[in-house]
Amino acid sequence: MLASLCLFVVYANTFKEVVSTPKPLKVLDTIMNPSYIPAEEKHGFYWKKSAITTLKAKLRESKNTNKAKNGIMFIGDGMSVATIMAARTFSGQLERGLGEESVLEFERFPYTGLARTYCIDAQVPDSACTATSYLTGVKTKYGVVGLDGNVTRGSCHSQLHKANWAPSIGQWALEQGLDVGLVTTTRVTHASPAGMYAHSSERNWECDADVPKECLSLGCRDIAYQLIMNNPGRQFKVIMGGGRRELLPNVSDPLVKTVGRRVDGVDLTELWHVDKVEKNATHQYVTDRNELMKVFNSDDLPEYLLGLFKDDHMDYHLKAKDQPTLEEMVEVAIKMLSRSKRGYFLFVEGGRIDHAHHDSLAHLALDETVEYSKAVKKAKLLTNPDDTLIVVSSDHAHTMTVAGYPSRGNDILGTVDTAHGDDRKPYTTISYANGKAASIGADGKRVDVTLSQQFMKRDPDYTYPSLVPLDSETHGGEDVAVFALGPWEHLFTSSYEQNVVPHLMAYAMCLTEDKHENCYPKPNRFWTSGATTARVGSVPYILSILTVIVATCL
Amino acid sequence: MLASLCLFVVYANTFKEVVSTPKPLKVLDTIMNPSYIPAEEKHGFYWKKSAITTLKAKLRESKNTNKAKNGIMFIGDGMSVATIMAARTFSGQLERGLGEESVLEFERFPYTGLARTYCIDAQVPDSACTATSYLTGVKTKYGVVGLDGNVTRGSCHSQLHKANWAPSIGQWALEQGLDVGLVTTTRVTHASPAGMYAHSSERNWECDADVPKECLSLGCRDIAYQLIMNNPGRQFKVIMGGGRRELLPNVSDPLVKTVGRRVDGVDLTELWHVDKVEKNATHQYVTDRNELMKVFNSDDLPEYLLGLFKDDHMDYHLKAKDQPTLEEMVEVAIKMLSRSKRGYFLFVEGGRIDHAHHDSLAHLALDETVEYSKAVKKAKLLTNPDDTLIVVSSDHAHTMTVAGYPSRGNDILGTVDTAHGDDRKPYTTISYANGKAASIGADGKRVDVTLSQQFMKRDPDYTYPSLVPLDSETHGGEDVAVFALGPWEHLFTSSYEQNVVPHLMAYAMCLTEDKHENCYPKPNRFWTSGATTARVGSVPYILSILTVIVATCL
Repeated sequence: MLASLCLFVVYANTFKEVVSTPKPLKVLDTIMNPSYIPAEEKHGFYWKKSAITTLKAKLRESKNTNKAKNGIMFIGDGMSVATIMAARTFSGQLERGLGEESVLEFERFPYTGLARTYCIDAQVPDSACTATSYLTGVKTKYGVVGLDGNVTRGSCHSQLHKANWAPSIGQWALEQGLDVGLVTTTRVTHASPAGMYAHSSERNWECDADVPKECLSLGCRDIAYQLIMNNPGRQFKVIMGGGRRELLPNVSDPLVKTVGRRVDGVDLTELWHVDKVEKNATHQYVTDRNELMKVFNSDDLPEYLLGLFKDDHMDYHLKAKDQPTLEEMVEVAIKMLSRSKRGYFLFVEGGRIDHAHHDSLAHLALDETVEYSKAVKKAKLLTNPDDTLIVVSSDHAHTMTVAGYPSRGNDILGTVDTAHGDDRKPYTTISYANGKAASIGADGKRVDVTLSQQFMKRDPDYTYPSLVPLDSETHGGEDVAVFALGPWEHLFTSSYEQNVVPHLMAYAMCLTEDKHENCYPKPNRFWTSGATTARVGSVPYILSILTVIVATCL
Repeated sequence: MLASLCLFVVYANTFKEVVSTPKPLKVLDTIMNPSYIPAEEKHGFYWKKSAITTLKAKLRESKNTNKAKNGIMFIGDGMSVATIMAARTFSGQLERGLGEESVLEFERFPYTGLARTYCIDAQVPDSACTATSYLTGVKTKYGVVGLDGNVTRGSCHSQLHKANWAPSIGQWALEQGLDVGLVTTTRVTHASPAGMYAHSSERNWECDADVPKECLSLGCRDIAYQLIMNNPGRQFKVIMGGGRRELLPNVSDPLVKTVGRRVDGVDLTELWHVDKVEKNATHQYVTDRNELMKVFNSDDLPEYLLGLFKDDHMDYHLKAKDQPTLEEMVEVAIKMLSRSKRGYFLFVEGGRIDHAHHDSLAHLALDETVEYSKAVKKAKLLTNPDDTLIVVSSDHAHTMTVAGYPSRGNDILGTVDTAHGDDRKPYTTISYANGKAASIGADGKRVDVTLSQQFMKRDPDYTYPSLVPLDSETHGGEDVAVFALGPWEHLFTSSYEQNVVPHLMAYAMCLTEDKHENCYPKPNRFWTSGATTARVGSVPYILSILTVIVATCL
């Protein structure tokens, strides 16, 4: 019977088909009329063959228990499982495929898991408590960065109390002598990247203008200040993203054009320069793509790089000018960090997936996800899974869904082609539970999207419909996916709390107290021909050395 | 620095806190005011400790490459990733926890994957093409069961053409001498279970009354008929679920009360009986919980069991009377099938998660998911991962989301406690992209759910709001999760097409042409002391036999 499945039968239906008309159509049973189905997909044999190919690839995988010399954590902010599916389809349709069969780069990774995102006081979290979770390994309160749940949001005292601090995997890596970098498409002081270096009881304290005076007088520092002046931020070899305004002074001189927001008069980019000069380290501060590419193409990369490409967040890829892509920033970062003999940890955020969702701009959210996937691909090409662990995940979900029964290859950005709502109006495949697009028209009825259909497909600013009117669409509460490639990739499967992720990475990278066998340098072969994996200091190691000594004496 | 993370500090904040008021609140930055945060969760040490516990459990896992003598596939119909998260929270809240930290049974499985659900003509699939995918390994057209994409939906000719047939893993198992069973909470003739035994170009042809006359006259059989009269259905040792009406005749005698829908006058339960008599096999047909429990508690289980507990689908667990739970059916099925020396394949569907979603009844959908989890737990308790592979997944997603920023422990069935919509009305945490609950009131404004709040929490028939009015809420298009436990569980990780699932199971169970080493019986130890895993017929196997012969001669 299995053999019959194997037969590749081209079924030439030469006689007249008896095709019944099914029962009166309910929406649930709408018959699909796809414009096109690839011929090969009609054959059972095709699907069996492709499944066997997948199986055989899985069987070839061997357990990679190497030391992860390098670790790269990619976070797609707000990249829910539905966003991944929609972006994959969008990507495939950009390349003129049907779309659904497309595969994003990180979906090729051999291991996947599911991470629970709730924070200790929030069923559905924000990007601050989740950044604390996936970067420091500690779940905390909504709105809080790099501090445990003993803090009160916005409390300066509890922020200053060092016992509450949760150091990030970036700091763990620095303490073991690794180089560290961060790349984001948001302000470098935004919640997600802040998880790498800041301890702030309020995520919105991005510059000193945001921090209440009584907190400043107690010594509480804003996030930008912490990035440039405190550890671990001042040790980061690479910092790239937007948010220049948080580092620059708000100069009152009307002749000086400034976008800076700082009221303390400090230019943190200048202090960054001074710090590197004091360290006697080569360094470069760049503000646009050209400057970055010059650095990249030079024979002599600086030791430190600060790239602030926009005053606010970096622009959406589809609207960007003069700014590097996420892929380009990742390439530069890896080139910089790869010089480190002891390895590196790099944090990369595709941060504007989230912003696009918040503004109901699904087209932009999917495009940002595709850009993120390209950056992952670049990282994969530039590294080796024998010594580099790449983990790709998200901080939280969003409320975007892919609904209806659109036919295969139907424009993921368009309306469902097989049915209307019961109000006889079409509806979009993509929609949100809440958001800024009004769903009820002036006539007190659901807004008719018929006239908007052309905009959906062309205008990235088309706002997708939502049930509940909210200026900013909210996050979703479901688990996010985790994809892993490289040493100890197999640890990242199953369902777990999000705060487990940095601990798993740290274990693979030998940053924790618990060390695996390959964390120890392999003893010289001359000493231990039969015990190449003997741990330094272990009994077999000492015995092997004694054997060599005795043999030499005799 | 890591050490500082380890410190379990009880932070006694004895001095007055300086707590700033953050910037004017946007919805995005709502401060949470949870009624309760577990004290231990406030400490970084707690999260580090629990993460290390998870890591160590992962490290203890060894690769299980045993032969899966038995395989159990659980499908939660419509159980999206969001459904799993919401059901987990609901379950925890039932047990008076906060909810989010709760864990469903299958979430404890060591390996997870993501399956893409699209069918060859549908971006968002139905339960028929997906059943064909995860049971026969072949993706096909929307509405089609057990046939490849060469068929036209509702075409009798293409249904009869055997080259188009896609045999199920149930049939593969039977061909290798295993016992096979199916358990569902829907009609046993519904799309998902039909994937186990039927070849039908139209999922709605559940009884002959549904099949057009011209198709019947050509020899096309309805799904119920195929289950009882054709292979592989007639060989199934266990069949349990609802759908009695599809097997019983629609008797025209007004004195005879019948629910049967069959117009051919055939009583398929009687034909099932006749078939087993002809096979000289003990058998039992049961129609309620009492009868089932009698069979279960008897010392002498029959060889065959047919349980049809309702005329239509089985009742929702929360509304059920006189019907067994899914957990009980699974227990009986495993007890029956475990007698098979060559092993078994069991298909279990939690089928009404999907129906509840279609009717916007989130409360019921979550409760059905919890029931499904209990059934998985029972299966786990009754089997051994050394020889039984359990795979838990879903066929497709739904459009339900968990939205807003409700605080920790907020009633998952209630309204978001931290914010209102921009229309100053509250909104529910759970909602749907489309469905039957009117979202626009008679006043042309969004329906105010304030007055419904009590119903939400008590009335399982409360319909959750949706954006687009549809009599039946639609499926969602995103990937579904796959959870695996037992032999070759590690194959089920990563992101793959849904049709790969049965091929992976079949490989673990040695049902495919490609066999792993443990598919072969281990040679007698007397012969091969040093090569216990030598494959029969292999060079080491032959050498070991020769060695024994030579040794004996000498």
